[in-house]
Amino acid sequence: MKAEIVAVGTELLLGQIVNTNAQYLAKEMAGIGVDVYYQTVVGDNPARLKETLQIAAKRADFVILTGGLGPTQDDLTRDTVAELAGKSLIVHQPSMDKLLDWASKRNTPLLDSNKRMAYTIDGSDPLDNDTGQAVGSALEIDGTYYVLLPGPPKEMKPMFDSYAKAWIRSKLPDETPLFSKILKFSGIGESNLEHALKDLIEQQEDVTIAPYAGDGEVTLRLSTKARARNEAFEKLKPVEAVIAERVGDYLYAEEDIAIEQVVIRGLIERGITLSVAESCTGGMLGDLITSIPGSSAVFLGGVICYTNQMKHRLLNVPIEMLEGEGAPGAVSQETAEKLAEQVRELTDADFGLSITGVAGPGESESKPVGTVFIAVAERGNGVYTMEMKTMGSREIIKRRAAKYALHLLWRQIR
Amino acid sequence: MKAEIVAVGTELLLGQIVNTNAQYLAKEMAGIGVDVYYQTVVGDNPARLKETLQIAAKRADFVILTGGLGPTQDDLTRDTVAELAGKSLIVHQPSMDKLLDWASKRNTPLLDSNKRMAYTIDGSDPLDNDTGQAVGSALEIDGTYYVLLPGPPKEMKPMFDSYAKAWIRSKLPDETPLFSKILKFSGIGESNLEHALKDLIEQQEDVTIAPYAGDGEVTLRLSTKARARNEAFEKLKPVEAVIAERVGDYLYAEEDIAIEQVVIRGLIERGITLSVAESCTGGMLGDLITSIPGSSAVFLGGVICYTNQMKHRLLNVPIEMLEGEGAPGAVSQETAEKLAEQVRELTDADFGLSITGVAGPGESESKPVGTVFIAVAERGNGVYTMEMKTMGSREIIKRRAAKYALHLLWRQIR
Repeated sequence: MKAEIVAVGTELLLGQIVNTNAQYLAKEMAGIGVDVYYQTVVGDNPARLKETLQIAAKRADFVILTGGLGPTQDDLTRDTVAELAGKSLIVHQPSMDKLLDWASKRNTPLLDSNKRMAYTIDGSDPLDNDTGQAVGSALEIDGTYYVLLPGPPKEMKPMFDSYAKAWIRSKLPDETPLFSKILKFSGIGESNLEHALKDLIEQQEDVTIAPYAGDGEVTLRLSTKARARNEAFEKLKPVEAVIAERVGDYLYAEEDIAIEQVVIRGLIERGITLSVAESCTGGMLGDLITSIPGSSAVFLGGVICYTNQMKHRLLNVPIEMLEGEGAPGAVSQETAEKLAEQVRELTDADFGLSITGVAGPGESESKPVGTVFIAVAERGNGVYTMEMKTMGSREIIKRRAAKYALHLLWRQIR
Repeated sequence: MKAEIVAVGTELLLGQIVNTNAQYLAKEMAGIGVDVYYQTVVGDNPARLKETLQIAAKRADFVILTGGLGPTQDDLTRDTVAELAGKSLIVHQPSMDKLLDWASKRNTPLLDSNKRMAYTIDGSDPLDNDTGQAVGSALEIDGTYYVLLPGPPKEMKPMFDSYAKAWIRSKLPDETPLFSKILKFSGIGESNLEHALKDLIEQQEDVTIAPYAGDGEVTLRLSTKARARNEAFEKLKPVEAVIAERVGDYLYAEEDIAIEQVVIRGLIERGITLSVAESCTGGMLGDLITSIPGSSAVFLGGVICYTNQMKHRLLNVPIEMLEGEGAPGAVSQETAEKLAEQVRELTDADFGLSITGVAGPGESESKPVGTVFIAVAERGNGVYTMEMKTMGSREIIKRRAAKYALHLLWRQIR
């Protein structure tokens, strides 16, 4: 089966945003065994969109559209596909109820333009939007399947993952399916991981191994074809054994989840509380932790001690440790340890986790950009520190530091 | 004049890389007044590439190709366009000399496959590659202009900028170029902003107005054609005046920058220090602030007071305010005010900024998901609070809350 990905949006044609949706969908479609032969971008123009869809229908079994489902006059995808199908638009009541509920909570009238987001194409299967308001649609027109997804990645991805993917799979013929397993690593960079597994990745016969980098996390996807899931997983086992032997220390999950989720799950299971002291990450560690629903059961909070004064004032780090001739300085093992211990005590948490480093762009204390110290203090069990050296933009250094801190905590509690 | 951007490469279709070339070229083409109507991605397959080019020729004056000029068997763009033009490939001697020189310096024979990179289409204008080895080509076939660029961005961009752009410009009739101006808003949603400007957006004659949403920020792009920049900006002025009159309260910048950047700039200019108290955002506000280089001059840090216990313990919020019969609760104006005042005092900052709310997925204190209170306390000047109601995922609510907090602070300091 073949697919074409069609992104609708003038902001893409003007180069205001990058089409990351196409990459995400291309990877996902490949993952379920559908070949993407074309990707197209077209503006918010009904005539050109219609023509694009007519071309796509000739060369693809699945046409996956993103964008143009929003409330504005420009958002014409729904109308154009309906016209192509010779159908009218109808209200999707659950989506309309959600909108009405939203408006009533805000004590504001629901604009007609907003209501457009609750319409689907008559006869289509609605696709719920769990992270936004515009409902999606999936339907067949003259032997071609169309899937309409919203443009913003944070709405598009959950909708695809939770609803559209299953819909597409249900239309696939019974081929020997491809099964995949995800392994997630932290505390190791992509190139080091790839180097350690070079021979396996190059071999790639029955089992394919594909690494994907994220900042501070690496994903490995193992795939193989088999008649059933358990048969596939049997085939993966020897490969997994070799991987575990070589880089098992960094493997934190066998599913596609973030390190913060594994950490929070681990803390909840063990009934352990946590607080943080953040210098160079400025709050990012707390933000990652509190992105996980349920984190409030174990995460108490902490201190953002961005300046030396705050490290001293809020967490009692001695001035002599921070400043002056021969002082270790704010970016040091000593300070990281003190921060972790002090925030743990101040909040009476079981664990205190601290980060202090140089995020750049300039050096600090003559220490190079990318120097970071991380410490974990445990109630009644001392403190453990790690130094990391990395490089990249301010944002990348902050993110890696926060992810490595979570990795260090995970190694202490697992 | 109209253009279509065609990217050639199976790695794009598989989602292994993101098509950032398309964004770059789209922006550049818009900058020289050529409208990009379509972007297409096609694999390393000569039949499908040929068909794609035939479709493109029907709907564009310029077809800009990226990729497929390298040394491997897969690199077929040059051959396919030559076939379409009915021309043969010829050696481009300067490129061949460069390759021979490269091989002799490395003391290695020049492979035939590498030599392919020094071929151009007979009768075309060669485009030099200053940062790589594959030569580009530009030519006309039956009234359509084709420009062949390499795939790697670090070769494609210099070639476009130094050679292809001038070639394209030389083919343009003397048209009036398009000028744009960006206006950025915060504290107002996209639909409300659009509603307030509906008549202007619908009119769209000489000046076009396009809104783009982000979480907690909205971008408005005003565009018009003129012979020169100052003439264009004169034409935009009356439209800007109407916009300022209607929604000027929310306008925070006349360039494409984030609210946190404007806030940090404002604090630095005024020599004002800031600290934060974050409940539901868990550190995201501090993270946004510290994403701006130079923020350490004005941002002291703060407290992540995720639990009630931490609000009491670290920021002295009275237990009676947080819990028990008739208490306002953690998510209330009273608590937001207390947090802002206390964090300001604790850190001796000029401003204290606090956020407390329900990020979901569950309700809290019987208050609906999306209820957020934000407070700004100013030294010697009391405290100002705002309630916001929003909806969406946990991540979206956190982000909007953090952005609205920055907006509130900005209104206090501007």
